[in-house]
Amino acid sequence: MSEETFDVIVVGAGVLGVATAFYMQKNNPDKKILLVDRTLAAGQANTAMSAAAVRNMFASSTNQILTDTSIKYFEHVQDEGHDLLFEKTGYLWLLSKKQFEHESVQVWMQRMEKSGISYKIYNKKELKEMIPGLDVDFVDDEAAELMNLHEISYGLFGKDCGVLDPTRLVEYYFDAFKELTHVKPKFGVNVEKLLLEADPLLDLPGEPFVWQKKHITGVVTDKGTFRAETVVLATGAWSNELLDPVGIDSMTKAKKRQMFVLHAEENSKLAEFLETKGFNEMGCIPFTILPSAGIYFRPQLQERGFWIGCGDKIGRKYEYIQTDEMMVPESAYYENSLYPVLSKYVPAFEGSRPVNSWAGGYCYSPDKIPFVYEQYGVIVVNGASGSGIMKADAMARIADALYREEAEAELFGGKKVPSKMLSIKERDVEVESVVI
Amino acid sequence: MSEETFDVIVVGAGVLGVATAFYMQKNNPDKKILLVDRTLAAGQANTAMSAAAVRNMFASSTNQILTDTSIKYFEHVQDEGHDLLFEKTGYLWLLSKKQFEHESVQVWMQRMEKSGISYKIYNKKELKEMIPGLDVDFVDDEAAELMNLHEISYGLFGKDCGVLDPTRLVEYYFDAFKELTHVKPKFGVNVEKLLLEADPLLDLPGEPFVWQKKHITGVVTDKGTFRAETVVLATGAWSNELLDPVGIDSMTKAKKRQMFVLHAEENSKLAEFLETKGFNEMGCIPFTILPSAGIYFRPQLQERGFWIGCGDKIGRKYEYIQTDEMMVPESAYYENSLYPVLSKYVPAFEGSRPVNSWAGGYCYSPDKIPFVYEQYGVIVVNGASGSGIMKADAMARIADALYREEAEAELFGGKKVPSKMLSIKERDVEVESVVI
Repeated sequence: MSEETFDVIVVGAGVLGVATAFYMQKNNPDKKILLVDRTLAAGQANTAMSAAAVRNMFASSTNQILTDTSIKYFEHVQDEGHDLLFEKTGYLWLLSKKQFEHESVQVWMQRMEKSGISYKIYNKKELKEMIPGLDVDFVDDEAAELMNLHEISYGLFGKDCGVLDPTRLVEYYFDAFKELTHVKPKFGVNVEKLLLEADPLLDLPGEPFVWQKKHITGVVTDKGTFRAETVVLATGAWSNELLDPVGIDSMTKAKKRQMFVLHAEENSKLAEFLETKGFNEMGCIPFTILPSAGIYFRPQLQERGFWIGCGDKIGRKYEYIQTDEMMVPESAYYENSLYPVLSKYVPAFEGSRPVNSWAGGYCYSPDKIPFVYEQYGVIVVNGASGSGIMKADAMARIADALYREEAEAELFGGKKVPSKMLSIKERDVEVESVVI
Repeated sequence: MSEETFDVIVVGAGVLGVATAFYMQKNNPDKKILLVDRTLAAGQANTAMSAAAVRNMFASSTNQILTDTSIKYFEHVQDEGHDLLFEKTGYLWLLSKKQFEHESVQVWMQRMEKSGISYKIYNKKELKEMIPGLDVDFVDDEAAELMNLHEISYGLFGKDCGVLDPTRLVEYYFDAFKELTHVKPKFGVNVEKLLLEADPLLDLPGEPFVWQKKHITGVVTDKGTFRAETVVLATGAWSNELLDPVGIDSMTKAKKRQMFVLHAEENSKLAEFLETKGFNEMGCIPFTILPSAGIYFRPQLQERGFWIGCGDKIGRKYEYIQTDEMMVPESAYYENSLYPVLSKYVPAFEGSRPVNSWAGGYCYSPDKIPFVYEQYGVIVVNGASGSGIMKADAMARIADALYREEAEAELFGGKKVPSKMLSIKERDVEVESVVI
């Protein structure tokens, strides 16, 4: 077994790990930074399995600033000539009167106003005119009543939100990192545990003892032991199995997320619905969240279709770490849970069957705000709670600032935030209430 | 398999479950309340494995009020003639100058003053006089340096803290519950899962679907299915495996806690140390926390000895749920990790070997403040983070108030707190920093 030494080892080549590796290498050009992942390429696990939508419409000012600056950076990257397939389709929350008037939605709108996050409210009449294919009422509809479907009274629309291609985004960061780094990234290498060692080592059996100073000195992998002064852990829904054994409570939970792809090509009504005008420059329906059951759809213009997902709550299990089973989409879930609701609100979906589907995992934190913190030589970057792509740029810059022991991190656009803002001990955040 | 129906099922007969069952039955005399546990008697798992010490010296006002009112209730119970072996030995934190001056300790003291929690500061000179058997300095002591031992400059003493017998406490609540209840508690019954069902049930395969209303309607056990309108979950370090599968993130982690018993009988120096005067009416050394490595000892007067424990941090693993391995104390841990530190600060411990030992688990919450909340028909009472006994009375009264849908819970002594104070959604607490 080999034993190699680096300055930094970044574990996990999802969007968070790759972006962090890039900023660390950029701002610490002499450091030997190893990027390691058990898959065979960057961005192949949950980054690729997400809805790949980006929004700055959060209720917590923390998530607002993380997403708003990241999205602006993605726009900047695309303007510079790297096509991320970033399209500002907008996000449209469809809400019942009761939902709209609920305190949490009112607070959400107030906080967005305060932070300068752009949004617009549509009423029922406007929605009916703009989206003829949408059913907003279910009067005397027994099936709708049985399914607990809410009428649609309002639409909350954010024009600066949109969708992108997660693979292209990861490629952008990965290429930029590769141009700078002196260390070849290692793929197909599974990190089995973090190495926690006493300092100084006494060479006694049973070390480390409680009275010894100790810190993370590297990782043990299936291809040997690699040592580094700093280990960055960006393993998302698999974090518990690396952090907990050394005594760092990762405080995250994994949960399955499924995505079902529908094509509009051979369904003229659905194609018409996809091409709903008035919301954005593309002339397409925005990323839309239905008022019932957490179901949403995302336009996918390149393949002229939709991705259907659901932020399901009670009844969808949490797990300690992501299991292989979480990577398997369930066709019965689409048919029995998503389709009946989808086709009620948008009859054009009637008869549609997925042409493709996939599944991955969320990595939830307790307050639905991500974690970026340093403890005992490991910098943890996780807990993005389903919105890692849209926060990736800001989280990566914060992780790099922590590495450089800067009190503040400068986000894209020049805004500065405390580097320990997302830490456990000096956490200074509002609980996020708008989780899809 | 039998199928029985109750109004309430309380899962877990540790101190939290039994106290909750008691208050619920007391305030809802007509309800059929079943108490169920997989062990053969009440209080046999982690309640019995704890240090069974009680303190009101917390840094968060939340933990202060939970413990202060609970301890006063225990005192009241004992005054009424139920001997809980509750002894106000006091708690003594030994601190280095640096630790004492640390912001967290200063805030802790300020918050105790504000809440009227009694404490006293001893300086080094006073400590040396009062506890001749204590070594406060390690000048030119290489072993102490190697072990990173801090000198002792201050003692923070809380006279209203102490120790009790956890079994007697649980017995008190259990007997009081049994006098009121019409339902025979079930022991030796393992709850395998919470029953989550759609309302109304449609008798379709695959229920519940995302668009259905659903709630917890009972529990599935190895002795049959039991149904109830409300399930109380007080399963501590085993909570994840019941809550997570139905989609309620329990947000807790388990961690091992070990206790080693030393007798002073045949060691006159240790007997003398045990009988240190000046701190309390018993004329014994208080529950004492050393300034290094998280090591503490608790006097046990009935057997003329000490219980030794350690709140170890990095290096002691967290786990998803308590494993059987957590129930096994490690003698090497005492010998290599605890004993060297203990015998440095208190030379009278030199040569002492445990005559008994046991191990159990902590149930940590993210902010080290307990959880009491209702979601989908289950009332969760957990996350006491190592101090469940001393918060039990208050937590149980809050759980009962939630069950009765009261906005406020009245704690012992008449103080009222919001019933949702310890919930996830309306959580209104300060993060606890004084965790042993």
